[in-house]
Amino acid sequence: MQKKRVVVAGMGFGGLRASKALAESNFELIMIDRHNFHLFQPLLYQVATAGLEEEAIAYPLRGLTRKWPNSTFLLSEILGVDLIGKTVQTDTGPISYDYLVVATGSRTNFFNMKSVETHAFDLKRLSQAEDIRNHILLMFEYASREKNPERRAALLTFVIVGGGPTGVEFSGALRELIVFVFSRDYPTIAVSETRIILVEAANTLLAAMPEHLRLYALQKLRSMGVEVMLEGRVVGATAESVELHGGTVIPSRTLLWSAGVAASDLAGRIDGVERAAAGRIVVQPDLSLKEHPEVFVVGDMACFIANGAPLPMMAPVASQQGEYAAGMILAREQGKTLPPFHYQDKGSMATIGRSSAVAVAAGMTFRGYIAWLAWLLLHLYYLIGFRNRLVVMMNWTYAYWFQERQVRLITSKKRRADKTLG
Amino acid sequence: MQKKRVVVAGMGFGGLRASKALAESNFELIMIDRHNFHLFQPLLYQVATAGLEEEAIAYPLRGLTRKWPNSTFLLSEILGVDLIGKTVQTDTGPISYDYLVVATGSRTNFFNMKSVETHAFDLKRLSQAEDIRNHILLMFEYASREKNPERRAALLTFVIVGGGPTGVEFSGALRELIVFVFSRDYPTIAVSETRIILVEAANTLLAAMPEHLRLYALQKLRSMGVEVMLEGRVVGATAESVELHGGTVIPSRTLLWSAGVAASDLAGRIDGVERAAAGRIVVQPDLSLKEHPEVFVVGDMACFIANGAPLPMMAPVASQQGEYAAGMILAREQGKTLPPFHYQDKGSMATIGRSSAVAVAAGMTFRGYIAWLAWLLLHLYYLIGFRNRLVVMMNWTYAYWFQERQVRLITSKKRRADKTLG
Repeated sequence: MQKKRVVVAGMGFGGLRASKALAESNFELIMIDRHNFHLFQPLLYQVATAGLEEEAIAYPLRGLTRKWPNSTFLLSEILGVDLIGKTVQTDTGPISYDYLVVATGSRTNFFNMKSVETHAFDLKRLSQAEDIRNHILLMFEYASREKNPERRAALLTFVIVGGGPTGVEFSGALRELIVFVFSRDYPTIAVSETRIILVEAANTLLAAMPEHLRLYALQKLRSMGVEVMLEGRVVGATAESVELHGGTVIPSRTLLWSAGVAASDLAGRIDGVERAAAGRIVVQPDLSLKEHPEVFVVGDMACFIANGAPLPMMAPVASQQGEYAAGMILAREQGKTLPPFHYQDKGSMATIGRSSAVAVAAGMTFRGYIAWLAWLLLHLYYLIGFRNRLVVMMNWTYAYWFQERQVRLITSKKRRADKTLG
Repeated sequence: MQKKRVVVAGMGFGGLRASKALAESNFELIMIDRHNFHLFQPLLYQVATAGLEEEAIAYPLRGLTRKWPNSTFLLSEILGVDLIGKTVQTDTGPISYDYLVVATGSRTNFFNMKSVETHAFDLKRLSQAEDIRNHILLMFEYASREKNPERRAALLTFVIVGGGPTGVEFSGALRELIVFVFSRDYPTIAVSETRIILVEAANTLLAAMPEHLRLYALQKLRSMGVEVMLEGRVVGATAESVELHGGTVIPSRTLLWSAGVAASDLAGRIDGVERAAAGRIVVQPDLSLKEHPEVFVVGDMACFIANGAPLPMMAPVASQQGEYAAGMILAREQGKTLPPFHYQDKGSMATIGRSSAVAVAAGMTFRGYIAWLAWLLLHLYYLIGFRNRLVVMMNWTYAYWFQERQVRLITSKKRRADKTLG
């Protein structure tokens, strides 16, 4: 009898975990991704701020999949899913399936603000992190020889939108890059000439955290020299300015947008599914589609309601859902079923700077050095690959001792024209 | 009294060494490069074959120059030199000098074969190494799903032109990448389907080496499975084929050109200098220009005759000349002079593969494991920066133990359109 085929579309945290759980099974497993590597997104901001090399947070997928019998990896762009014909359309042809796990994640949501989408950086892909690093370094190179005070100020002003973990972590890391490293690299630029402005629409940073941690993060960032602007909203941008709701215009050559994510475009290209806010696909309690029990949607793409709200778009949710979907497929084949998916919230954390982070875990809250240490160890633990762990650990140790970030290379002076690759 | 100004144009091995020697002096030192990093070119081929990350062989120049008083680094493209007006033209404006060290190195020489220039890769810049790595990996991804036997063969055929150190080292490293790593990554591709063809116009590889080492290198490469084609000449190329002198056409999607270098374009943009073969600028015994004793040319750009032949275009020559030029400038200011430049040949080496290299040093020759070990240690020693040494050592140890190369990431599916940046 021919083996049944499971297709896993997307090899982020959800797809990877699902594949791992299915790898030893009796299915034919086909994994599809447009990149040949798994990206450890939580550390992208460190690549963008010259703290880590790109290669340290990417793991070649074939290095994993080659250990799995009956499995095939396919480097392809996923174009759509035909739920009736049980087929995934890719740019290298159609792939039929018996079971499908859809896990292509999310994209940045610019909320239809075209000028922002054109001029802002976002931080979802490896190539974008490199682009941002190149850009920040170039701004300092240009400023170091710019005499005109207005142009110089715009070059040295960095606007970050969104006070979630990415915005907080990026702002803190950029500030430390300037204070500890650029202050020595660029003797003609004073730290006081530089501005980092973190704009958040709500009246608090890190909205998912308990209040005293939110306040700690806010105070810490401000004491480091980041200008935090609460209840502010960016409504437009040009190459040389950022416009706020209310009319204020900030001359700035750098805008990072981390104020929203939406389901990846694939979600819109699957006919006959119910969609919720941010384009996420509504799933059943077992993560399958209502009319298509053989199709599971996991991670950022899935809208799964728990305690009256959709689960957040973050790595632990994706991982747990990937594992659950795989378990469900295995159970089905044995004529069994599983209890509905339940998200085990193991906590969340965000690092603010050197020796400073906030964390919630097991009903307890942590902040400062202890939270920072926990953050480091957990990220090392979850990173894939012995070599990558070593490289990251080495970089962190080096940065901590020498207050240095060595990956401050300008590898291209142009923003990548092709936004679809990375 | 105002300080005299020394401008160093180009921060490769020659410019870097000259700058170091002038850093503590009483001159105003201005260093210009189009990149903000010094590149350790001898290991570029390892980046191209997924053995090292780009960042490991690049060192941020400001990390060096910030330690030097009276020095300024300028990230600019050098457009020309006005010897009469004592001015360097850059894309960010003119820079006047009292002394000038020209050290912008070399470019690949395609000998006016336009079709080769269009379709071949060359390996001088960091971005080119990344392009080659991406391309090799893509060829295997495409081949893994290609059913047509002819197209499949072309995807798996790699032609390397030039039997000097770069061609030999690249061929060996690519072969080992395929045999040790891709054989496991791509279960549907047999190693016997792949071809690496090293084409050399002369009747020997590594012409600068003693004969028994040349023979050793040839036999070793052949025993590893590299097809070495001596007395062969590539005369044309398309995207899907390589044409040899005599009419043979090899279907291949990958052509690496390492068969010639010429002085960088700047050499042609300096009026009133004498040029020799490959566009190199003829220098006096003290490396200065005949009519312009305040201008020194060092490294690949300089044509310096020793024992009846120009010195080779390699790192040790550039380093020694850079240091000499700096010494000469310092001596002049004290009304002194130095004996003419003399190149101290400390030997040369090339690695062929795992535990295998050839080396000449201090009148002795080495080959095999001992030469390979010496190669590793010397390259680690000459690499700049503690962190980079650690990363490289770690990668090498990891590769040796696990027969693994982890940097096999496809970071872009397009060849960089902009050939002028890197």
